[in-house]
Amino acid sequence: MRATVMHAAGDVRIEDIPDPSIVEPTDAVLRVTRACICGSDLWPYASMEPSETGQSMGHEAIGVVEAVGSDVSAVHPGDLVVMPFAFSDGTCAFCHEGLSTACVHVGFFGNAGVNGAQAEALRVPYADGTLFKLPVGEDDDELMPSLLTLSDVMGTGHHAAVVAGVTPGKAAAVVGDGAVGLCGVIAAKRLGAEQIIIMGRHEDRIALAREFGATDVVSDRGAEAVERVRELTGGYGAHSVLECVGLEQSELTAIEIARPGGAVGRVGVPQEEKMPASQPAFYNNVTVGGGPAPVRAYIDELLPDILDGRIEPGKVFDRTVGLDGVPDGYRAMAVRESIKVMVRP
Amino acid sequence: MRATVMHAAGDVRIEDIPDPSIVEPTDAVLRVTRACICGSDLWPYASMEPSETGQSMGHEAIGVVEAVGSDVSAVHPGDLVVMPFAFSDGTCAFCHEGLSTACVHVGFFGNAGVNGAQAEALRVPYADGTLFKLPVGEDDDELMPSLLTLSDVMGTGHHAAVVAGVTPGKAAAVVGDGAVGLCGVIAAKRLGAEQIIIMGRHEDRIALAREFGATDVVSDRGAEAVERVRELTGGYGAHSVLECVGLEQSELTAIEIARPGGAVGRVGVPQEEKMPASQPAFYNNVTVGGGPAPVRAYIDELLPDILDGRIEPGKVFDRTVGLDGVPDGYRAMAVRESIKVMVRP
Repeated sequence: MRATVMHAAGDVRIEDIPDPSIVEPTDAVLRVTRACICGSDLWPYASMEPSETGQSMGHEAIGVVEAVGSDVSAVHPGDLVVMPFAFSDGTCAFCHEGLSTACVHVGFFGNAGVNGAQAEALRVPYADGTLFKLPVGEDDDELMPSLLTLSDVMGTGHHAAVVAGVTPGKAAAVVGDGAVGLCGVIAAKRLGAEQIIIMGRHEDRIALAREFGATDVVSDRGAEAVERVRELTGGYGAHSVLECVGLEQSELTAIEIARPGGAVGRVGVPQEEKMPASQPAFYNNVTVGGGPAPVRAYIDELLPDILDGRIEPGKVFDRTVGLDGVPDGYRAMAVRESIKVMVRP
Repeated sequence: MRATVMHAAGDVRIEDIPDPSIVEPTDAVLRVTRACICGSDLWPYASMEPSETGQSMGHEAIGVVEAVGSDVSAVHPGDLVVMPFAFSDGTCAFCHEGLSTACVHVGFFGNAGVNGAQAEALRVPYADGTLFKLPVGEDDDELMPSLLTLSDVMGTGHHAAVVAGVTPGKAAAVVGDGAVGLCGVIAAKRLGAEQIIIMGRHEDRIALAREFGATDVVSDRGAEAVERVRELTGGYGAHSVLECVGLEQSELTAIEIARPGGAVGRVGVPQEEKMPASQPAFYNNVTVGGGPAPVRAYIDELLPDILDGRIEPGKVFDRTVGLDGVPDGYRAMAVRESIKVMVRP
């Protein structure tokens, strides 16, 4: 079958690899009907050292279960399912606490003997704990983009909002106008934020942020951005800040625009070993939390809003490609020509 | 009158300075009956550049109100009061939210035209918002040490526990065996932690920590300490970690011993501009919060437990001096000869 393999920064190829099969009794094999390219895929696309074996790519998918191992009981061949970006057993203490990304058996697609989801198919470990059966048909083209966001970006934006303590009637700010930031706007509105400030400078993304509920836009950077957010929030900053980038500058901005006593929810993968502004965060009693979103645990809460059309996170997809179009999809996202690319293998 | 002035690292002097007086109508003048030396005073004691004018020292006190300005109505001459380490107006949005240390008029004793509390007397700005009238007499020598901790260390330890999300039945770890860490043990027990691990290596402090409710002691440092805490907590770390030091190594340890999904409550004043272990904190969804404790807001909750003898944080004082003994008190705390020194001016 065909799958996406990255060999070095800027070098993404579609290659023939062995078909997946059941290895463990808890496995399922998934035929991928929708996948996508993630903003986090752009980090290796910008910096990966050349590799002979390459890195199998993709961690977001909707697909049809083709086969299951003997211990799988929650999903069956023929089921349409959403696949969260991490697999988890569904039974450990962390899964029970709703932190599936800390599962004692957690793993990430494209690693540990499992190929990535930008492919025709893949093996899914711990299928019972990982996969979530969808109550729609494979042919529901209208709902499919929004349902696909449950595998990562909508759950991740929601996690940022939850960790940032978004509260009805208060101010939220979203640092980053990528797909996760835009889903963060949806999440902040859904949780009742009265004011939602999007920090970004790309016209198409800002327009979508406004459609999703952003009330203010700040396109400055650095000290000017901080000043502008303070002006917009009565001088004190936002109660909740969603950090959806992961660079030192964006983390610094996130901490500096937080109101004293406020919280920053980080979901942008941090690119530096240390966090800036430890002292300002301390003196303002700003809490910094977040991490890999337990999107599996959030599906129950978010799915009804997608099915009923109350939220439409699928609008972050502005381009659809087949597998052959994946390499160009990476390029388009890297140069900000596209917000997020959907893949129909 | 006489007061404590620091002129350089290791150079603490008792000097004659002008008597305090009412300057603003919201001021009170306090005759200090008890003050103390704080662990945070040891930072400048270790590193202060020589200064001709010097730095007036001390921010914790109990005293008797001697005079009040025309706008003061909540306290009256003759009242015995506890003075939190920061002054606050009691009326702004942050004070109403319980974050008095973010008050729009916040200030710190020893600065901004106000002398420190290691003195015979001092001027207290925003007396109505700052001072808390105590329901005991000036001569209640037994309760006085514990009541004095409401001005800083007990409220600060409590803040660490609150921010770290100490929960009944869960595990808490306290990094640092100074007075604040020891009060953190009291706070963790008071909030119901089932397991309380004190990280420290001074015998006298560890003995007191056990008396306060610590169930386990870890005297290793670095990787060994992390390994030991994991062993003590079923392999995963502590749900709540109270960081009561502020050094890079202690922050690193605090983050590394936190359970995935857990929280670190920082009250040790951070000595570095950046925070270590940003990536481990992220990948484990560990929240890091805290800052200057709003001790004024916590007095209502903590005072009854002191009056009834349910908690005895005053046991952290193991030495009492007059003003003349203050310089030697700094020395004794700096060399860990004393946990915390009380001053009777």
